[in-house]
Amino acid sequence: MADAQPQAVSPDEANSNPAAVSEVADNLSFPLFGAGKPTTILVDPAEDPGILRAVRDLQSDLEARGPIRPVIRTEIPKEPGQMIVVGSLENSRWLSPLLDSGQVSTQGLSGEWEAFSQEVVDAPYEGVERALVIAGSDKRGTIYGIYDLLDRAGVSPWAWWADVPIEKTGNLYVSSGRRLEKPSVKYRGIFLNDENPALFGWANKTFGGFNHAFYERVFELILRQKGNYLWPAMWGKAFYDDDPMNAELADEMGIVIGTSHHEPLGRAHIEWERYGEGDWNYQTNAGNLRDFWRFGMDRIGGREALVTIGMRGDGDEAMSEGTAIDLLETIVSDQRSVIADVTGKPASQTPQIWALYKEVQDYYDQGMDVPDDVTLLFADDNWGNLRRLPEPGAERRGGYGVYYHFDYVGGPRNYKWINTTQIERVWEQMGIAYDYGAREAWIVNVGDLKPMELPISFFLDYAWDPSDIPLENLDTYTRDWAAQQFPDAYANEIAALLEAYTKYNARRKPELLDADTYSVVNFSEFERVSDEYQALAERAAVLREELPEAYDDAFVQLVWFPVTASANLNALYYTTALNRLYAEQGRARTNGLAEKAAELFARDDQLRRVYEEEIAGGKWVDMMSQTHIGYTYWQQPDVQSAPDTERIEMPEEAGFGVAVPGSRENWAARSAEAVLPQVDVLSRHTAEFEVFNTGQAPYEVTVTPLRPWVSVSDNALNIEMQKSVTLAVDWGEAPLGLTRVPVEIDAGLLGTKTLHLPVFKPENAADVSGLVEADGFISVDAAAASRIFGGEDIEWSVIPNLGRTGDSIVALPATAPASEPGSDSPRLEYDLWLFERGKLDVTITLAPTQDFKAQGGLHYALSIDDQAPVLVNAVEAEVSGEGDASWEKSVAQYAHEITTRLSVDEPGAHTLKLWRVDPGLVFQHVTVATRDLPETYLAPPGTPQCEASDTGETLPDCSIPVVSSASP
Amino acid sequence: MADAQPQAVSPDEANSNPAAVSEVADNLSFPLFGAGKPTTILVDPAEDPGILRAVRDLQSDLEARGPIRPVIRTEIPKEPGQMIVVGSLENSRWLSPLLDSGQVSTQGLSGEWEAFSQEVVDAPYEGVERALVIAGSDKRGTIYGIYDLLDRAGVSPWAWWADVPIEKTGNLYVSSGRRLEKPSVKYRGIFLNDENPALFGWANKTFGGFNHAFYERVFELILRQKGNYLWPAMWGKAFYDDDPMNAELADEMGIVIGTSHHEPLGRAHIEWERYGEGDWNYQTNAGNLRDFWRFGMDRIGGREALVTIGMRGDGDEAMSEGTAIDLLETIVSDQRSVIADVTGKPASQTPQIWALYKEVQDYYDQGMDVPDDVTLLFADDNWGNLRRLPEPGAERRGGYGVYYHFDYVGGPRNYKWINTTQIERVWEQMGIAYDYGAREAWIVNVGDLKPMELPISFFLDYAWDPSDIPLENLDTYTRDWAAQQFPDAYANEIAALLEAYTKYNARRKPELLDADTYSVVNFSEFERVSDEYQALAERAAVLREELPEAYDDAFVQLVWFPVTASANLNALYYTTALNRLYAEQGRARTNGLAEKAAELFARDDQLRRVYEEEIAGGKWVDMMSQTHIGYTYWQQPDVQSAPDTERIEMPEEAGFGVAVPGSRENWAARSAEAVLPQVDVLSRHTAEFEVFNTGQAPYEVTVTPLRPWVSVSDNALNIEMQKSVTLAVDWGEAPLGLTRVPVEIDAGLLGTKTLHLPVFKPENAADVSGLVEADGFISVDAAAASRIFGGEDIEWSVIPNLGRTGDSIVALPATAPASEPGSDSPRLEYDLWLFERGKLDVTITLAPTQDFKAQGGLHYALSIDDQAPVLVNAVEAEVSGEGDASWEKSVAQYAHEITTRLSVDEPGAHTLKLWRVDPGLVFQHVTVATRDLPETYLAPPGTPQCEASDTGETLPDCSIPVVSSASP
Repeated sequence: MADAQPQAVSPDEANSNPAAVSEVADNLSFPLFGAGKPTTILVDPAEDPGILRAVRDLQSDLEARGPIRPVIRTEIPKEPGQMIVVGSLENSRWLSPLLDSGQVSTQGLSGEWEAFSQEVVDAPYEGVERALVIAGSDKRGTIYGIYDLLDRAGVSPWAWWADVPIEKTGNLYVSSGRRLEKPSVKYRGIFLNDENPALFGWANKTFGGFNHAFYERVFELILRQKGNYLWPAMWGKAFYDDDPMNAELADEMGIVIGTSHHEPLGRAHIEWERYGEGDWNYQTNAGNLRDFWRFGMDRIGGREALVTIGMRGDGDEAMSEGTAIDLLETIVSDQRSVIADVTGKPASQTPQIWALYKEVQDYYDQGMDVPDDVTLLFADDNWGNLRRLPEPGAERRGGYGVYYHFDYVGGPRNYKWINTTQIERVWEQMGIAYDYGAREAWIVNVGDLKPMELPISFFLDYAWDPSDIPLENLDTYTRDWAAQQFPDAYANEIAALLEAYTKYNARRKPELLDADTYSVVNFSEFERVSDEYQALAERAAVLREELPEAYDDAFVQLVWFPVTASANLNALYYTTALNRLYAEQGRARTNGLAEKAAELFARDDQLRRVYEEEIAGGKWVDMMSQTHIGYTYWQQPDVQSAPDTERIEMPEEAGFGVAVPGSRENWAARSAEAVLPQVDVLSRHTAEFEVFNTGQAPYEVTVTPLRPWVSVSDNALNIEMQKSVTLAVDWGEAPLGLTRVPVEIDAGLLGTKTLHLPVFKPENAADVSGLVEADGFISVDAAAASRIFGGEDIEWSVIPNLGRTGDSIVALPATAPASEPGSDSPRLEYDLWLFERGKLDVTITLAPTQDFKAQGGLHYALSIDDQAPVLVNAVEAEVSGEGDASWEKSVAQYAHEITTRLSVDEPGAHTLKLWRVDPGLVFQHVTVATRDLPETYLAPPGTPQCEASDTGETLPDCSIPVVSSASP
Repeated sequence: MADAQPQAVSPDEANSNPAAVSEVADNLSFPLFGAGKPTTILVDPAEDPGILRAVRDLQSDLEARGPIRPVIRTEIPKEPGQMIVVGSLENSRWLSPLLDSGQVSTQGLSGEWEAFSQEVVDAPYEGVERALVIAGSDKRGTIYGIYDLLDRAGVSPWAWWADVPIEKTGNLYVSSGRRLEKPSVKYRGIFLNDENPALFGWANKTFGGFNHAFYERVFELILRQKGNYLWPAMWGKAFYDDDPMNAELADEMGIVIGTSHHEPLGRAHIEWERYGEGDWNYQTNAGNLRDFWRFGMDRIGGREALVTIGMRGDGDEAMSEGTAIDLLETIVSDQRSVIADVTGKPASQTPQIWALYKEVQDYYDQGMDVPDDVTLLFADDNWGNLRRLPEPGAERRGGYGVYYHFDYVGGPRNYKWINTTQIERVWEQMGIAYDYGAREAWIVNVGDLKPMELPISFFLDYAWDPSDIPLENLDTYTRDWAAQQFPDAYANEIAALLEAYTKYNARRKPELLDADTYSVVNFSEFERVSDEYQALAERAAVLREELPEAYDDAFVQLVWFPVTASANLNALYYTTALNRLYAEQGRARTNGLAEKAAELFARDDQLRRVYEEEIAGGKWVDMMSQTHIGYTYWQQPDVQSAPDTERIEMPEEAGFGVAVPGSRENWAARSAEAVLPQVDVLSRHTAEFEVFNTGQAPYEVTVTPLRPWVSVSDNALNIEMQKSVTLAVDWGEAPLGLTRVPVEIDAGLLGTKTLHLPVFKPENAADVSGLVEADGFISVDAAAASRIFGGEDIEWSVIPNLGRTGDSIVALPATAPASEPGSDSPRLEYDLWLFERGKLDVTITLAPTQDFKAQGGLHYALSIDDQAPVLVNAVEAEVSGEGDASWEKSVAQYAHEITTRLSVDEPGAHTLKLWRVDPGLVFQHVTVATRDLPETYLAPPGTPQCEASDTGETLPDCSIPVVSSASP
């Protein structure tokens, strides 16, 4: 979306950004429209129909964007007006003379796969002053040249799929210079999968099924995103069979069709059910299977395809136990015979792909032979973590690819409902894949396609050119994407919402979220998580009000709904968690929370209806119908059911209750001693507890700290439901060391309760510096290291926003060999200040990276001060997925959390060193505990960093923030 | 539309109507759906994409019609359900085994052009009980087999184009027997033309121009109507150039593209303006023209086309005077060289067409050489009358075709707004064309396409198989068509409305209609015409109320709007005519009529808005925007202007006025004698006149017939505006012979006026018989002859509804040689009864048939009694069109009217004989006048036929109707 404010473009900028599209011109610019002259699009009608289709989109999109409809011409008109020339090197009578004369260069185009150039050319033809020439090396290159221009001219690839408005403008210019683009990854595609009920219902109601009317929209989206590859929807659907026009149209438009990893030779999985005779078992039924595959190969005909080979068990399951490597080798050999037979060419001349998915990768590891011309498709673990990559530099004719997931049906639990993918993780993982040489094919499971708009854009943009999105541009990617869909003025705020909601959804996918996910008693964890999401929803609501009405449909789809619905879901589970806690404590608020939970559950469906019915004229019917509440095992529930809440009988008379953080008890009902979290002079200055009612009649309490230097927020309270009480310390009066201050809560006839507040005021506080332990722990973002040491060819880089909290930090490149930890090898150092000697439990939180190098793990090392580094294995071994409890835990919590016990002999200043060993690890958080930590899902709140006072003050400056971004 | 009432089908009926579709089954039937089983459509995915597209329509239309969506399968499924097998002989792996086994016969398919069969086949494949097999001889044959089934299954070809609902039904069966169909005319198509502003505006607003999204709809319509041929829109539009996908899609779907008669080698007319260098003049600019054409030929590429050759002047005008035959021969020869050069094959291997349009036919007549392989396209005179046909049996390799018009821009005046074509005339003219051997190509100019739905259906159905619409089925065609679009129960009434409105619009096209068209004083002609149309509009309004709501959109488009808007237009001009008459007479009602005319003019636009805005959700925006009021010459006005009306100053005091039929005078203001139309004892029993006010104050009159046997409807009247007075005769008291009865009108102080009423009571009235002259004329439908004499191989046939009034009668076959009139040669005889001797002016009204045999005219002969037949030339010579006054008159009035003077020596019984001479004449009306007839546009009211009394009564029975249908 171009900024409505014209900006000055200096010639330098123009040169650094050739063929840039903007609303301002210099004297070398080409006007896409404007200047009162019509725009003419010149194309040779003999071009491939796929190009002609894109030319039509060029016409209609420029019409939507500008004042008048450009005309398409097949010859040079006598009154050409502004002329856009579109041509492929292969087949354009209009490009040929420009190539011959050298006005358009073939450099970077000739012989290239899908390359294009865009260039303003003076006097291309007699009588034509200036033209914008879009030249493609081949059919798709030419098509991309068109869509690339449109994209940069303010027509979002999502215009149809997300109702992004095309804003009218009076003038639009293309600057001078040659823009030359070509893809880095050869096949770049998406996989529509797990498509019931949402995409299924919508496609049926909108198009009458998964037919070519539906796929036309899908193909166009892929092309607009400069992708070229599709695995079509396949659960109960058969691309080639359901509508024979599907394949025809794909070929016409230029989409390479594959079938998913377990659907060989163009046969959809369901086709075996429809037509197959006998068992899906090559040992017992080879003849029928070969016939079945031969039909598929025959049906592909001359169309461009990337043929899947190999075999899995029926229904994308592992084959039966009897399956041996030699059987798979026989299968593939027989499949290639069929391919050779049907095509009349050696099998090696037909592009093929073999997915090393789940157990098939094990066979490969065991030495299964794969023909050299076949593309080996490595897979992630279905949760976005690469299982395996080739050795960097490993050569094979067919190359390597990656099958990735934004959506999955399987354990530990489906994730289908809403976008939960951080593009930062995609950047990191697919970047490694690219660096390791997986550049032949990238395909990603996008579920229902919506609401995966942002990660789809990112995946295909990144596949086009990873070098165009270096780390330093990663945080602007989301902003630019927001500006592509919405007015520029809102792009920063929208990007912030997108980044935050994907982080929040990634750290616990909605299907895995429940009332037990976050701690409801420790560090107010659940409350903070829910509040943060609520704050996000409020920002989205404000923005929705502010945005011009025309953008509302798009905003709801891309921002408001995922934010609001996810916030609501978090609120639902938080409310449920509180309700259950309060029920245990007998609190008067219990039943009110049950009601609130019921409302939040109902609101989930109301929000769905906003998306499906209230916006875009009901265009997105059924599209958000994926169930996501009420899971009891990995598979989705057919209908949603609210989480169980408690309702309790409430006595008429008042009842005395006291709750303290870290505990589920009603301490008023117990004789045991209740201890509050420790407060200290450096960081945590106050403590809170709650007084509540366990009956209907109100009662009065008085709160009395038994030391004069401890004050209370309100010492006489009338308790109808509950009240929170804050205790504060007059640090000037407080004694040095640790003091326990009794606090009396007197509820008259209902009883009294004494709480104990630990108050800590260290000696020589002014000397304290670094990350200062408080109440037994230090919690810090890994990226907020006190000192960072790279190495020869090793650099530490912060990946902003990546991970469950804050940013992440990685050592790059990922292709570098392992480091020997110690001395001056690459490391992160953290200055600690400890008040006790003894054991230190150091917990490192890492992204759930797999052992993609298949070397038995990925290691880092830890040490304190000058102790020898302790080697730690972050991931014991790459696992194939479901059934492995530690893997399930790591993907569910979006992290490895590994605790290593170290120790210090003395309190005071120490240095924790986190050493790089193996490549590919993503460090996110460091927790150092001197005592057993209260349980949390994420991490304790961040520890402030202090600097010793040099001004004679008695206290150090502990206001230095150490967590670089989001919570906690 | 199938009747909702199940009907019993006897096996005999099933055999006479093989593969019939109905809601009832016998034990040999195939269920299209129902019986709880899914319907499976089996197709080889290797079939042509055009077939695959139609298969998708089969799926979606059956889904719309039945309870569930059928599935498309590319193999025989294990659970096939009901199976519909679609296959072409060329390319179906599923048809092949059935052909091999003989279960499906190739008889009538093999080697045929566009043939198909539909047949229920038992046990076609193992495990499949029964299938419906649609087999096509080729691509289009297969496509037609699908659409033919859908059409008969209750899916109108107009479902999209006229919003005809597809009604749900639970069961639908195909009966046993083999339906085998193939076309009679090879190329059958439509020409979108004269397409601004209506189609232009609509296509732009709906599709963004004349692009492939628009043409996809057009192509589908043509295919559903079993057509195969299109001349695309061309005024300022270029099919190949505007959207290069247009041609691609046409070829994919199976539409043969031509360019119109004056657009050679695939180049649109506007392309010369866009690209042409120099003049459109082959004498001065041959090189550039050849290059221009070469580009066009090259652009057609391998696509199926029927290439236009020849040349006219720029803008579809005649070439400059210098043009000689040898120049055209050179042009065609050079064009064929280009064709041969581009295709690399002899020109004779590329189908070509040369339109003998306007002056080009003259060159042809003068001996211009046309290569034998070129299809010669004869044209009508732009008004639906064939100019020329080949000699029956004439052979040429390229065959003959016809270019016909339902719409025209040119003289005497455009006709574009609304449908004005009687399908009966199309049947008659195109039937002759077919009989004379014009069977290679039929193409019709359909203007904006809408609102020509009915004649388009008819033209393409008739081209498919003229033998399927023999004369005896012609009147059921409209009824069947109505039943195709609407529920059966309403079909008769809708057909009646369609037949009546097309007759009324044909007799004077709306653009030619004005206040002077019909007589406002003679025989109440204009009033009767307007009243008839108003009655039609009232029937349409009643029907609109009665029809189920779902049909309203279609009904408005197909029936209500053309009827209502045409009725309104007639009312507008009638009101204007009355206003002008009254202004001359100074009548008090004058200004009121001016206001009414203004309202009727405004209503024209309101009705347009109903069509464009109120129905179908505004789908038909701009579609009725063709101007049609305010013509001043042949070309349309840019905006409509109301016809001029008069407003007069009205004195306050009363003014006496009297008007009598046949006169524009106010007789009260004149001293001359006022004579009323004659009344007589046999037919016209009463006379009327009007008394009116020429001022504001009312006045009183008394009316007094001065014979006691003449009575008056009201002899004392208060005249505020005007009153009609009826005079009646007591025939028992009236004297024999002719008596003039004075009638005194006394307006007191305002004056008196005496009118004279001629009263005729013939002697021996009881003996009178036949068509009895009254007031000097006999007027009778030609088809209502007293006796009809055919001849050897000549038969007289009544074409119901054809013509301006009543039916028409023709001698068939039109290929028979001329007859020598006299003795017992074919003739029609009319029994006349005349009261005077002397001259007889016999006026024969014929359809405006042209001299299509180019023999110097088409003749009939007339005689009285046994007098020698007088040869009459109905049409002096075929004319090329504009500029010829007699031709302009004939097409404007939709008739030749030729008066021949005969005479009788005696009063009494005589026989008028109308002799067939040349073939092809269409007789409609006979008027015999003994005196100068009052002027009318149509004809005087019908004369009753009498039978002499054989019961002793004094009067014959004159109640026998002689006019077989509509007015007058």
